Amino acid sequence: MAEVAHMIDSEVFLAFSTYATIVILKMMLMSLMTSYYRLTKQVFANIEDTTLVVKTTEDRKKLVRFDPDVERVRRCHQNDLENIVPFVVIGLLYSLTGPDLSSALLHFRVFVGSRFIHTVTYVMALPQPSRGLFFGVGLCATISMAYRVLTTALFL
Amino acid sequence: MAEVAHMIDSEVFLAFSTYATIVILKMMLMSLMTSYYRLTKQVFANIEDTTLVVKTTEDRKKLVRFDPDVERVRRCHQNDLENIVPFVVIGLLYSLTGPDLSSALLHFRVFVGSRFIHTVTYVMALPQPSRGLFFGVGLCATISMAYRVLTTALFL
Amino acid sequence: MAEVAHMIDSEVFLAFSTYATIVILKMMLMSLMTSYYRLTKQVFANIEDTTLVVKTTEDRKKLVRFDPDVERVRRCHQNDLENIVPFVVIGLLYSLTGPDLSSALLHFRVFVGSRFIHTVTYVMALPQPSRGLFFGVGLCATISMAYRVLTTALFL
Repeated sequence: MAEVAHMIDSEVFLAFSTYATIVILKMMLMSLMTSYYRLTKQVFANIEDTTLVVKTTEDRKKLVRFDPDVERVRRCHQNDLENIVPFVVIGLLYSLTGPDLSSALLHFRVFVGSRFIHTVTYVMALPQPSRGLFFGVGLCATISMAYRVLTTALFL
Repeated sequence: MAEVAHMIDSEVFLAFSTYATIVILKMMLMSLMTSYYRLTKQVFANIEDTTLVVKTTEDRKKLVRFDPDVERVRRCHQNDLENIVPFVVIGLLYSLTGPDLSSALLHFRVFVGSRFIHTVTYVMALPQPSRGLFFGVGLCATISMAYRVLTTALFL
Repeated sequence: MAEVAHMIDSEVFLAFSTYATIVILKMMLMSLMTSYYRLTKQVFANIEDTTLVVKTTEDRKKLVRFDPDVERVRRCHQNDLENIVPFVVIGLLYSLTGPDLSSALLHFRVFVGSRFIHTVTYVMALPQPSRGLFFGVGLCATISMAYRVLTTALFL
């Protein structure tokens, strides 16, 4: 990890910035997808939100409820949080270890690609093990970068 | 994104450090608010936690339950996680693209301000669309920074 | 926070990279632990996941259910997200403020140690206040680093 200050100007860091931003924007889209499902299916988590679609008090209480499709999108969002956050943290540190550009691009592309496909498999409820497979691919990309960080920068 | 290594010494980076730390501390406060509600309202998620307030076995089982106020604080915390984490990641990369100080401060202040107000509207259950509005303002600040990162640093 | 660009080459930054990677890997383990419990206890969140263990349609529906052990692991994972993410963000900024190596190592070790013990106390349901104590220790380590960031880098 010598001279990592130079790394921050490198193409690897530019690539990291690009892919991290894309995958974070993708994660933020899940919030909007949840809102869209809540409004179109009229399923709310808070009583005050129901005024967005109906006005009578009695009808409003019934709209605070669970819906399997909304919960599915929320689980997908949660899975993104649990996997994309580790990628961003470890990917940043990995970028500072001075990896080959081709090797770094491979890690970033595999991870980001696997998360986009993971979302499609989750939201569309495609048959397993498709979702498990792309979850695993993303996990392996992150662990591979973590391995390089630990072997390059280990200081306990 | 040329010479970003110099950016890390800049006033923009100091400003980012300040606002990121403040908004992360605000997010951590939600944990303490949840604990406070759980202890004062005697609503627990784990059987072993109930010994903090009662000792008899029969009473303890009844305290592992849901409470709408606790769930509200937890949803607010979750919304923070889903929005503040993207801000921190994209804000860090944005700070390294060398934006104007005034432009950077505007983004940071708008985001952090919107999240504080969002929490007040959520916890106090203020009428919609107040909460939706401040959620949207924060989202736009983050997306605006992401746009600059992608137009400055794009490397696919 | 002057000359923080040099800090990124420092032993403090190497130590941060090491401990951040370790604690993020520990958080990722919670995903695998959840999958392990779901498969061995046959408790699923999605109907399509049940094909991994049974094939008949009637039996599959019954496997989409809640289980207290799975929920416990998921709460532990959520608690990690709520605490490890703040540590990583504030720890990174703290590392750039040029703290003493011994002081930085103390913060990193206390935090990471407390989170490992926290997980043991949570998953094994050890009597309180053990879990609360280690949650608090980790929180204090993060707040102490945040205090240094704000007193060193404050720029509002």
